[in-house]
Amino acid sequence: MPDIEIRRARRDDVEAIVRMLADDQIGATRDSTDNLDLYLQAFDAITADPNQLLMVAALDDEPVGTLQLSIIPGLTRSGALRGQVEAVRVHRDHRSTGLGGHLMRWAIEEAKRRDCELVQLTSDKRRTEAHKFYERLGFVASHTGFKLNLQSSL
Amino acid sequence: MPDIEIRRARRDDVEAIVRMLADDQIGATRDSTDNLDLYLQAFDAITADPNQLLMVAALDDEPVGTLQLSIIPGLTRSGALRGQVEAVRVHRDHRSTGLGGHLMRWAIEEAKRRDCELVQLTSDKRRTEAHKFYERLGFVASHTGFKLNLQSSL
Repeated sequence: MPDIEIRRARRDDVEAIVRMLADDQIGATRDSTDNLDLYLQAFDAITADPNQLLMVAALDDEPVGTLQLSIIPGLTRSGALRGQVEAVRVHRDHRSTGLGGHLMRWAIEEAKRRDCELVQLTSDKRRTEAHKFYERLGFVASHTGFKLNLQSSL
Repeated sequence: MPDIEIRRARRDDVEAIVRMLADDQIGATRDSTDNLDLYLQAFDAITADPNQLLMVAALDDEPVGTLQLSIIPGLTRSGALRGQVEAVRVHRDHRSTGLGGHLMRWAIEEAKRRDCELVQLTSDKRRTEAHKFYERLGFVASHTGFKLNLQSSL
């Protein structure tokens, strides 16, 4: 990955990130650049929180991959910090190039630097290729991930 | 639940919470009151973060249930906030009394009050009774939860 820089996302990267979120079988139903203001507000909330790291993998300074790493303090496991990864995406023109692994290894190393004792993530059961990818990185599929949609339960 | 109060955990509740974490088939292998200082340090980190809510269900002011609710900002789903629940435990003398459901419904309502669009949690695949409990509350087992233990990968 000689030309790829992994760096914090900037506000002017948000549109490119949202395009990656929307260009996805599952994300297409719920993400779109039509309401960019909502994403910009969320970007401001993310960057105001020192425990949230929204990252991009940039080629010639243009985002071609993204993920968010959250650092979560807790009592379990003798008061361990955990690193949680969400919203991993690679631009369709750069898939199967090793870019996703490069980004994930960055997140794992950053979690270690911040003294996390584990890294966790959930992946939709339909993303079977992603599951193999995470297992190659050493993750263990030990848990079931439950979601409760509050909008549909109102 | 007339006599149960759901309130923020205090520093002097930490030992009782850790006893509940340790009194568990899975937690027993990794949690213990022998190293209470580590848990007190973690308690201080949790309470310093306004997006972390460590709660107890108290009977006569004594913790008999606990959970942690984390509020996580993100870009996906049009910049949705998500509420994440970790470390749900009920004291063994108070199981099957409805206390766990009472605590979880508090967390769901609090997530709504904070404008979260979903609540999420993961549960070890071995906790099959817990999975039925979450499904009764409306959660959908749509995801696989992956963990990478950084201590064993060093």
